[in-house]
Amino acid sequence: MKLASLKGGKDGRLAVVSRDLKRAVSAASIAPTLLDALERWTECESQLARLYDQINQGAATDAFDFDPRQAAAPLPRAPQWCDGSAFLNHGKLMETAFNMPPLPDVETIPLMYQGGSDDLLGPCDDVPLPDEAHGIDFEGEYGVIVDAVPLGCPAAMARSRIRLLVQINDVSLRGFGPREMKTGFGFFQAKPSSSFAPVAVTPDEIGIAWKDARIHLDLHIDWNGQWFGNPNGGEMNFGFDQLIAHAAKTRRLSPGTIIGSGTVSNAGGKKGSACIAERRAIETIGQGAPKTGFMKFGDRVRMEARMEDAPVFGAIEQRIVQAPVPQE
Amino acid sequence: MKLASLKGGKDGRLAVVSRDLKRAVSAASIAPTLLDALERWTECESQLARLYDQINQGAATDAFDFDPRQAAAPLPRAPQWCDGSAFLNHGKLMETAFNMPPLPDVETIPLMYQGGSDDLLGPCDDVPLPDEAHGIDFEGEYGVIVDAVPLGCPAAMARSRIRLLVQINDVSLRGFGPREMKTGFGFFQAKPSSSFAPVAVTPDEIGIAWKDARIHLDLHIDWNGQWFGNPNGGEMNFGFDQLIAHAAKTRRLSPGTIIGSGTVSNAGGKKGSACIAERRAIETIGQGAPKTGFMKFGDRVRMEARMEDAPVFGAIEQRIVQAPVPQE
Repeated sequence: MKLASLKGGKDGRLAVVSRDLKRAVSAASIAPTLLDALERWTECESQLARLYDQINQGAATDAFDFDPRQAAAPLPRAPQWCDGSAFLNHGKLMETAFNMPPLPDVETIPLMYQGGSDDLLGPCDDVPLPDEAHGIDFEGEYGVIVDAVPLGCPAAMARSRIRLLVQINDVSLRGFGPREMKTGFGFFQAKPSSSFAPVAVTPDEIGIAWKDARIHLDLHIDWNGQWFGNPNGGEMNFGFDQLIAHAAKTRRLSPGTIIGSGTVSNAGGKKGSACIAERRAIETIGQGAPKTGFMKFGDRVRMEARMEDAPVFGAIEQRIVQAPVPQE
Repeated sequence: MKLASLKGGKDGRLAVVSRDLKRAVSAASIAPTLLDALERWTECESQLARLYDQINQGAATDAFDFDPRQAAAPLPRAPQWCDGSAFLNHGKLMETAFNMPPLPDVETIPLMYQGGSDDLLGPCDDVPLPDEAHGIDFEGEYGVIVDAVPLGCPAAMARSRIRLLVQINDVSLRGFGPREMKTGFGFFQAKPSSSFAPVAVTPDEIGIAWKDARIHLDLHIDWNGQWFGNPNGGEMNFGFDQLIAHAAKTRRLSPGTIIGSGTVSNAGGKKGSACIAERRAIETIGQGAPKTGFMKFGDRVRMEARMEDAPVFGAIEQRIVQAPVPQE
């Protein structure tokens, strides 16, 4: 099934959306918010599935046209946002371009940072940022939303804790990255709010494209209307099950925790890139210096995974804008 | 005033606690949770202050004895937990002991990592961890809880956004730290859930000890009943106003965001340390190798700031225990 959180309240208002993303219906009678549904999943799942059947058959009363501009992030406030970097091709390109020493154990221990999770943006929300000079970039990613995961959960058990799949723009400010990495404290100012495609979907919605705890779908990325890349999520070097186990090694995860794949990245170069930093790394390796600049205020990015020309998560279509200067 | 969240529900149940921490009264009629009170602070503040006056005068109806074992963290689920490292003495000791190159700009740009904030522990809760071999450590810290802070908020404006002061045990697993720092992605497995003293207090509660957006109080730390340190919070190289401005540089902060000082640390050595890692660094510098081991299951840590022998936040008194192995 496909679930959205319509704007309203801090956690949005849960709606069930038709498979073709054309119609929606409030699920308030089952659970007021997606977070609440996740916390009571065994109780809510079959009721939500029944409503999903109804809306796909045109039989849901009080259904209305689904407008992605009215969608918040599926979880506007998530308990945690743990973002991996599971496509090693991306890391290798960055290392080569910046002449960094290879990380030890990088093929056996996933990279992951803790992101802020209290202000996640909807698919068509403007992205307010303070300064173009910070090196504004997008990162096209996939992610999963989990049920409760106990501390120490192994990967084999983790797979059954995956409830929903999501598509993400992990907005990044490249001007802060190198210093924040060098301090060892990791990304902070480099990672403002991330944005999410309109609907979260259960794994069965993508059929055989859900395999080995990976999303085997091309993620189509346009920057200001121009193709930028369509890398496939299947090339993840760690599955989401392994990323969850990594996250849960020393903590339990609350229902609604979001685990990200990191920038989708494919070897070979033909599929383009899912972030500007990677294209700049490829330019640096091939031509000695980056040619492509970062985003400007007013720039637009569009990201959408598609399956046989049918929509999956819907599209992220958003604009970078200048944040207002705060007033007392 | 002094506020606690009694155990119950995901966000606790708001209570007002007497200055001497002996009596408490439910504040449910004003706000069900501290998070809710923070989100409606201008509306709730004077009502909470009135109840605080009543309980201090023994005039609050339905008051009861305050039991810190019944206290959750003031915010069991906070929107964000942004932990600084604002005592440069600590960083210098670590650099010297481990022969690390000094960080550029470390005296002008605060260090800060993003912590998980969905599972913060109460003052007397056991700390469940998977393995003694991970190098279990405590970190005694102070922190502040802020109201809404706009993106780009300067330090001068940030100070007025501080609503409450807190005392924290930032539990750390030192076995993961060096690798996680080296990856540049920062602390993740190294930082399981943090714990909080029983009450959060408004800045006026500590009188002249609240100065320059710093908490000028000794933080007394005992490990298994033995003195470990009593460093003073006044030596912060960055005030909380500067830490808030750093956190808000590229994002807005939601009401209830917690900003931490990092391990309290004083130059000179007489005041001991607020974490084992720092004592080990001092031993390494002075004697060539660390002598003190990390915590074992069953070990206890106690942390309490005191003011002229009056309690402030109450004490963190907790035990490290082995987490159960998850079962399907």
